[in-house]
Amino acid sequence: MAKVHNFSAGPCILPQEVFQQAAAAVINFDDLNLSILEISHRSPSFVKVMDEARELVKKLLEVPEGYTVLFLQGGASTGFLMSAYNMLSEGGTAAYVNTGTWAKKAIKEAKLLGNVNVVASSEDQNFNYIPKGFEVPSDADYLHLTSNNTIFGTQYKEFPSVDVPVICDMSSDIFSRKVNVADFDIIYAGAQKNLGPAGTTLYIVKDEILGRNERSIPSMLDFKVHADKDSMFNTPPVYPVYVSMLNMRYMLKAGGVEAMQRKANERASMLYTEIDESPLFEGVAAVEDRSQMNVTFVLTDDSKKEEFDLLWNQANVSGLKGHRSVGGYRASMYNALEVSSVEALVNAMKKLRS
Amino acid sequence: MAKVHNFSAGPCILPQEVFQQAAAAVINFDDLNLSILEISHRSPSFVKVMDEARELVKKLLEVPEGYTVLFLQGGASTGFLMSAYNMLSEGGTAAYVNTGTWAKKAIKEAKLLGNVNVVASSEDQNFNYIPKGFEVPSDADYLHLTSNNTIFGTQYKEFPSVDVPVICDMSSDIFSRKVNVADFDIIYAGAQKNLGPAGTTLYIVKDEILGRNERSIPSMLDFKVHADKDSMFNTPPVYPVYVSMLNMRYMLKAGGVEAMQRKANERASMLYTEIDESPLFEGVAAVEDRSQMNVTFVLTDDSKKEEFDLLWNQANVSGLKGHRSVGGYRASMYNALEVSSVEALVNAMKKLRS
Repeated sequence: MAKVHNFSAGPCILPQEVFQQAAAAVINFDDLNLSILEISHRSPSFVKVMDEARELVKKLLEVPEGYTVLFLQGGASTGFLMSAYNMLSEGGTAAYVNTGTWAKKAIKEAKLLGNVNVVASSEDQNFNYIPKGFEVPSDADYLHLTSNNTIFGTQYKEFPSVDVPVICDMSSDIFSRKVNVADFDIIYAGAQKNLGPAGTTLYIVKDEILGRNERSIPSMLDFKVHADKDSMFNTPPVYPVYVSMLNMRYMLKAGGVEAMQRKANERASMLYTEIDESPLFEGVAAVEDRSQMNVTFVLTDDSKKEEFDLLWNQANVSGLKGHRSVGGYRASMYNALEVSSVEALVNAMKKLRS
Repeated sequence: MAKVHNFSAGPCILPQEVFQQAAAAVINFDDLNLSILEISHRSPSFVKVMDEARELVKKLLEVPEGYTVLFLQGGASTGFLMSAYNMLSEGGTAAYVNTGTWAKKAIKEAKLLGNVNVVASSEDQNFNYIPKGFEVPSDADYLHLTSNNTIFGTQYKEFPSVDVPVICDMSSDIFSRKVNVADFDIIYAGAQKNLGPAGTTLYIVKDEILGRNERSIPSMLDFKVHADKDSMFNTPPVYPVYVSMLNMRYMLKAGGVEAMQRKANERASMLYTEIDESPLFEGVAAVEDRSQMNVTFVLTDDSKKEEFDLLWNQANVSGLKGHRSVGGYRASMYNALEVSSVEALVNAMKKLRS
């Protein structure tokens, strides 16, 4: 069958080699003659997987001493809640930047637990830019950011430097660029973009904050509970963790985050160049805040829609439909997407103007 | 390689046919030429999977009208919390039966949200029986039960008939026996026993209770939020749901829950018979409360340990070590365990006394 160019917004493309290994383990894992789906999470073979997964995160992101890596469940949607539960003090105030749908959801969950001060927002322009130059009150318990905004196609190029702890939802661009982990107290990321399949969520948590909040925290939402049990307080999502581990092995072999960043630059530059050069397309996000992961663009002439949709479909491009909040098109270009897939899309765009 | 007889306590054995289908979909799912691990959860192919999974639960368990089936994340440990969040009123009291480790954890989470009245407990006998004949105050918001206690090897044969809503954690025996769903307001179950691999949790919730609690509930813990979005409020654990769906298809084809129950009877009767007939073994749980899923037993003469361990290892039996709270042995016999595997274990036990 012809190769599908998978621009899906997530769950998204992973390397073919990872799929081969992942499929094999469903039949016979670690030469046990058992499927990875039927073994105990306490078995030595799986404990090794969990340990390696946590180590690979540390290696790939150069996580400094004093941080704990966890693989939990519930997606970033649970991360919104856990962040506030662990960091927002009784009666305290948290600062949030509202950069779109996901930031809003994070704000909503935090409000259940305390005061939220939205210190900046790009809602006035349908979130097509990243707010800058805002002030964060020094008595805020933390500042919460969303590093990349999948729906609107914006991304922080530099994170604001502030005097309060920073929590960042990096679900959609983690492992695609170098990050100075020491600048953050909590980083969290649903796996289903650059890390692995849906079903597990990565947390990188500064040890200092573990158990520090005086609030009573439900066990499953308490980072300390999970850290004390090496991410095995309850049965972990075995297979999603395993596939994430395989994918991180692959990333490391392929040159690590630096190589992923180069590839992301190459893909993004190729696609944004065509958007800018073509009279038929227009980017949605402010140029300086353009995401390298999710490229949002629209036709300048809507009557070309049918023709363009036919062209990219013929090119075997999949998953290009824009989110309903923005319309138009969205090309999600996660780590495993080959530059040749972007070429296929750009060629379809070029054909439209030829 | 020789067949492994997998008595693992969970994650546990699933049918070989399910593993074959599950592995194939990691390479090419639904003839899309894409892996199930790289497709959007909003794609028609996966929406169909989620819908079929929910329908299969209804069919297999004869779920009556007025109930919603959900596939969420977080395991029963999150179920402990969600149950209380959705059913325990501000200032109200919940009734719990303490039948061991899992019940205790449920009690702990409920205490964060209100008053807990432990109406019965078998802690006096290290949880080797199911309490009976207890009273539940009629003003309790609900009664919480744990249908099968994996660690101690006890199981409710009949559920108490009470005048308050009943919540039941059926993680370890769901789909192994007929249950009258109408007797419960919430049934929940971590998938990783009879349902599927680790990473998803089944909830069967009476529609009446959705949105009824006046407490403010975090989105991810609110059944109404998930019900309103057909279990897709956030990215679901795609693969664990898919494999659960495959396994339910298999169960239906194999005769449904009635057939699973017959097989469970056969396995349990074979093993308990040997325990009772052999002078070398002794069951841990009270005879009338013996679990059909987890058979706990000890040697009457500890000096035989080395010999017995050698015998069952030679028979390719795996996962027989008892939990540290009980010691001895635990044979977990979930739906996919063949009667021939129990024979292999019983033969090893017979050899010990021959």
